[in-house]
Amino acid sequence: MKFPKIFTLKEIASIIKAEFIGDENFPIYGTNEIHRVKKGEIVFVDHPKYYEKALNSNATTILINKKVDCPEGKSLLISDDPFRDFNAINGYFRDFSLKNQMIATDLDIGDNTIIQPGVFIGNQVKIGKNCIIFPNVVIHDFTTIGDNVIIQSGSVIGGDAFYYKNRGYSFDRLKSVGNVIINDNVEIGSNCTIDRGVTDSTIIGEGSKLDNLIQIGHDTVIGKKCLIASQVGIAGCCIIEDEVTIWGQVGVASSITIRSKAVILAQSGVSKNLEGNKTYFGYPADEAKSKLKELATLKKLVK
Amino acid sequence: MKFPKIFTLKEIASIIKAEFIGDENFPIYGTNEIHRVKKGEIVFVDHPKYYEKALNSNATTILINKKVDCPEGKSLLISDDPFRDFNAINGYFRDFSLKNQMIATDLDIGDNTIIQPGVFIGNQVKIGKNCIIFPNVVIHDFTTIGDNVIIQSGSVIGGDAFYYKNRGYSFDRLKSVGNVIINDNVEIGSNCTIDRGVTDSTIIGEGSKLDNLIQIGHDTVIGKKCLIASQVGIAGCCIIEDEVTIWGQVGVASSITIRSKAVILAQSGVSKNLEGNKTYFGYPADEAKSKLKELATLKKLVK
Amino acid sequence: MKFPKIFTLKEIASIIKAEFIGDENFPIYGTNEIHRVKKGEIVFVDHPKYYEKALNSNATTILINKKVDCPEGKSLLISDDPFRDFNAINGYFRDFSLKNQMIATDLDIGDNTIIQPGVFIGNQVKIGKNCIIFPNVVIHDFTTIGDNVIIQSGSVIGGDAFYYKNRGYSFDRLKSVGNVIINDNVEIGSNCTIDRGVTDSTIIGEGSKLDNLIQIGHDTVIGKKCLIASQVGIAGCCIIEDEVTIWGQVGVASSITIRSKAVILAQSGVSKNLEGNKTYFGYPADEAKSKLKELATLKKLVK
Repeated sequence: MKFPKIFTLKEIASIIKAEFIGDENFPIYGTNEIHRVKKGEIVFVDHPKYYEKALNSNATTILINKKVDCPEGKSLLISDDPFRDFNAINGYFRDFSLKNQMIATDLDIGDNTIIQPGVFIGNQVKIGKNCIIFPNVVIHDFTTIGDNVIIQSGSVIGGDAFYYKNRGYSFDRLKSVGNVIINDNVEIGSNCTIDRGVTDSTIIGEGSKLDNLIQIGHDTVIGKKCLIASQVGIAGCCIIEDEVTIWGQVGVASSITIRSKAVILAQSGVSKNLEGNKTYFGYPADEAKSKLKELATLKKLVK
Repeated sequence: MKFPKIFTLKEIASIIKAEFIGDENFPIYGTNEIHRVKKGEIVFVDHPKYYEKALNSNATTILINKKVDCPEGKSLLISDDPFRDFNAINGYFRDFSLKNQMIATDLDIGDNTIIQPGVFIGNQVKIGKNCIIFPNVVIHDFTTIGDNVIIQSGSVIGGDAFYYKNRGYSFDRLKSVGNVIINDNVEIGSNCTIDRGVTDSTIIGEGSKLDNLIQIGHDTVIGKKCLIASQVGIAGCCIIEDEVTIWGQVGVASSITIRSKAVILAQSGVSKNLEGNKTYFGYPADEAKSKLKELATLKKLVK
Repeated sequence: MKFPKIFTLKEIASIIKAEFIGDENFPIYGTNEIHRVKKGEIVFVDHPKYYEKALNSNATTILINKKVDCPEGKSLLISDDPFRDFNAINGYFRDFSLKNQMIATDLDIGDNTIIQPGVFIGNQVKIGKNCIIFPNVVIHDFTTIGDNVIIQSGSVIGGDAFYYKNRGYSFDRLKSVGNVIINDNVEIGSNCTIDRGVTDSTIIGEGSKLDNLIQIGHDTVIGKKCLIASQVGIAGCCIIEDEVTIWGQVGVASSITIRSKAVILAQSGVSKNLEGNKTYFGYPADEAKSKLKELATLKKLVK
C-alpha cells in the first residue's frame, strides 16, 4: 500500500544492516505481502520453496535469505532473517504510536458526523460525512472511513493482525502496518472486530452491511453490497466479491475467494474457493443441493 | 408497542404526504411488525403476496402500496413506498437522539444499583434496584431493566436491528424504534449484544442467565429461567419459551419458536420450530437420539 | 488458590452458623473446586453421589450436608445448604468490591507498560513490564499479568464465571472469587472474554496467542505456546496442554483435557478428552483422517 515515506535501497539496507544488490538509489515506497505486492514495494521470502514466486512477483525489491541472481529491473536485500528485518522495515514506513488521549488531534472528520462518548480514535484517521460512531467504539491508527457509515457500540476497527512466525521457542508477531478502509454506506454492528492489514488494507466495500460480533481478518477485502450476519468469522487475506450473502456463524478459512452473489447458509465452514451465483452449505461448504441430499441419504440409512 | 405519542390518521398522512382511507381522527398509537401488531398500530405491506395477511392482522391501520377496500373498523394509508414511509413515521413516534454525554440525565434508577465507570446510558432508560452494570457496558435509549440484574463488562444492550430492504442498488435500513426489556434477576455476561426491537420489544425473561459473547436479535423474546451458554446466536423475531437450555455456539434462525424446557446441545443449528421437553442436536437440529444414530451409522459404514 | 487471609475451623463455622467436626483451630486457607482443591482448602458437596470423592479429595475441610465420619487429619463443616454456605465463605476470603474509578489506586505496574485510554482496572491487579493494554479493555480484581503481554481493545479479563445451581425456582450464582493469571509473552486479541476462576485461577500459559472474540471459561488452564484462532469458545475447567493449536470457531465442552501438540481443525466441537500430537475434526471431534473418510463415504452413497 502507499506509505507516506519513500526510501532508497541503500537507506533500507542500512536500516537493517543488510547487503543489497541493485542501484543504491532504487526507490522503495513500502512493503507488502506476496498476493498484493505492487511495483516499488518490498516482499520478504525466507523459504527456498517460495523463492521463485517472490522473485517473479510484482515486488521490485525482494528481501531474501540467499544470494540469488537479481531479476532484471529489480533489487535484492540479503538478510539472514528476512522476517525480523521485514518487521524492522515496517516500523520505519509507518509510525503506530500509543498516545494517551481518547481522540487524536489530527482526526480528519466530515460534516454532520457524530462521535458518541467513550470512542477511541487513533492517529491519522479520516472519517467522512454523515457518519455515526456509537459509544465505546475503538478506531485504530490510519483507518479511513467513507460517508454515511454507521459503526455500532463496542466494535474495534484496525486491531493488530493475528499473524505469527513459529520460531520453535516462541511465536514472533509480524507487526501490522496496514490499515482498514471502510467505504461509503457501510454499516457495522456491535462488538465486531475488523483487523487491519499486515502491510496492505483490510477493505469493507461500498454499501455492505455487517451484523454484530463479526470477525474480519487482516487484509481481507469485502466487496460491495455484501450482507454478513451475526458471529460470522472471515479469516485473513480473503476476497469476498460483490453482493455475497453470508448467514450467521459461518467461518471462512484464510486466503479464500468467494465469487459474486454466492450465498453461504448459516454455520457453514468455507475451506475452498467458491463460485458465484450459487448457494452453499455445510463444512466443508459445498453446494447446498448436494449437501442436503447427503443429509437425507444418511437419515434414510438409519430408518 | 406503546409509544409516548398519539397521532390521528390525518396527521400521519400529512407527515408522509399519503392519501388515506378512514376517519381523519382515527387514532394511531404506534407502529409494529405483522407478528406482534396490536389494535391502534400501523403495519406496512408492500407485496401483494402479503396484502391479505396485513389487512386481516390485528393492525387497525395498514400502510399499503395499492388502493384496496378498507376492512371494517380499520383505516388505510396509501403510499408508493410503504417501507420508506414506515421508516419516516417511526421517527415521529420515538426520538432516538445522539447525545454526547456518558449517562443521560433522565435515567430512572433504583436503590443500591451500581453503575461502574465507562458505562454509556442513553435517554429514557429505567434500571431497577440492586443491579450491577459493569464497566464499559452500553445501554441504548428506551431500555428497561428490572431488579437484581447483572450486566457484565462490554455488553451492548439495545443496538440497532440488522434489518434491511434490498432496493437492488442498495440495502435500506429499517429504523429500529423498539427497545429492550430485561426482567428481574436476569444476568448477562461480557461482550454480549442484544439488539432492540424494530417496532416492539426484545425481551429477556425473569431469571434467565446469559453467558459471554451472545447475540440476541431484534424482537426476540426469551422466556423465564432460560440458560444460554457462550457464543450462542439467536436471530430476530424468535420465541424461546421458559426454562429452555441452549449450550455453547448454537445458532437459531430468525422467527423460530422453541418450546418450554427444550435442551439444545452445543453447536447445533436450529432452522425449524422445536417442541418442548426434548433434547436436540446437529444442523439442522433434530432430536439428539436420532442424530446420534446417524453419526454411529456413518461411522460403521466406513469401518 | 492462595487467599490473603487465614481462618480457623471455628471461625468459619461461626460465620456460616454450622456445626463442625475437628480441632477448632484447624487452619483454613481458602476454598476450591474438587478438581483443583489442595491441602488447607474447603471443598463443598451436597449430593450423596459425590460424598466419597469429596471426602477423599485433597481438601482438608469438607462442607457437607450430612453428618458422616470425619477422615483422619481432616475436618468437616455440617450445613443444610453447602452451596449457600460456600458462597458465604467465599465472600470472607476475598473482597471483590465495586469501586467507581477507572483505574484502582493499588495497581502494581511494571516499567514501560502502556495503558491506553478507556481501560478499567479493578483492585489488586498486577501488570508486568513492557505490556500494552489497548483502549476500552476491562481488567477485573485480582488479575495478574506477566511481562510483554498485549491485550487488544475491548477484551474483558476476569469477568464472573457462568456457574449456577438450579434451585428449581431460580438459578443461584456461585460467587467467583478466583482470578485470571496471564503469563509472560501472551497476546490476546480484541473483544475476548476470559472469565476468572470460581475459587482458583484461570490461566493463560507463557507465549500463548489468542485471536479476537474468544471465550475462555472459568478455571480453565491454557498451556504454553498455544495458538487459538478467532471465535473459539473453551468452557470452564478445561486443561489445554502446551503447544495446542485450535482453529477458528471451535468449541470445547467443560472439564475437557486436550493433550500437548494436538491440532483441532476449524468449527470442531470437542466433547471428550483428546490425546496429543494428533489432528482432530468435526463434532464430536474425532481424528481428522477418520472424519474425512466418513464425509467421503457419505458423498459416494449419494452419487
